[in-house]
Amino acid sequence: MLDNISQINILYDFYGELLPPRQKEIFRLYYEDNLSLAEIAEEYGLTRQGVHETVKRSEKKLRDYESKLKLINRSQWEEETIDRLRKTVEDMIREREADSQLVSKLRQIKDGIVSLNQ
Amino acid sequence: MLDNISQINILYDFYGELLPPRQKEIFRLYYEDNLSLAEIAEEYGLTRQGVHETVKRSEKKLRDYESKLKLINRSQWEEETIDRLRKTVEDMIREREADSQLVSKLRQIKDGIVSLNQ
Repeated sequence: MLDNISQINILYDFYGELLPPRQKEIFRLYYEDNLSLAEIAEEYGLTRQGVHETVKRSEKKLRDYESKLKLINRSQWEEETIDRLRKTVEDMIREREADSQLVSKLRQIKDGIVSLNQ
Repeated sequence: MLDNISQINILYDFYGELLPPRQKEIFRLYYEDNLSLAEIAEEYGLTRQGVHETVKRSEKKLRDYESKLKLINRSQWEEETIDRLRKTVEDMIREREADSQLVSKLRQIKDGIVSLNQ
């Protein structure tokens, strides 16, 4: 299981662009730069409570995007499938290493499969 | 090149869930059910102009989501890569049809690759 912070960082990677600029900035300062609520409050002329609410509101928005688009869910499934395919092709390359023409094609396929994960 | 209506339908498939329920419904009635602005206006007790603005606002939002998340762009590239890989594996299956053990593994790989497009 991912801890809460890792989960939030993944949500931010996928949907952070959809937050309004100021919310996005405050969120980033808090979760990526690890500034305290008090430090962010001072920088933005807000109360500590105001910053806290902004962070929580952004977090809720990010979770809401995932509940609607399910990109993270989908992406995890894709990663597993790609990884499984990569391993199968690698096994074949090992089993057929004497067949250089086949191995060369299998390597092409492996590279194509891996590129889907980037 | 896709015409405007096809583009809008693809945008709706990817991001429609992010529209507020009423905007989503009006958008769907207009672009999927092909109701006229006047018909939708009557159903919702709005002016024709009001419906027109709602549709345009939704369209702008969908384009905005794509400009930020680029899911359609990415998905088109993935589809092309998957299609190219599928064809390579199919060619290999044809070339090596006498090698039943190999063909069976290649078929597994092909199925895995194709599943990524669903």
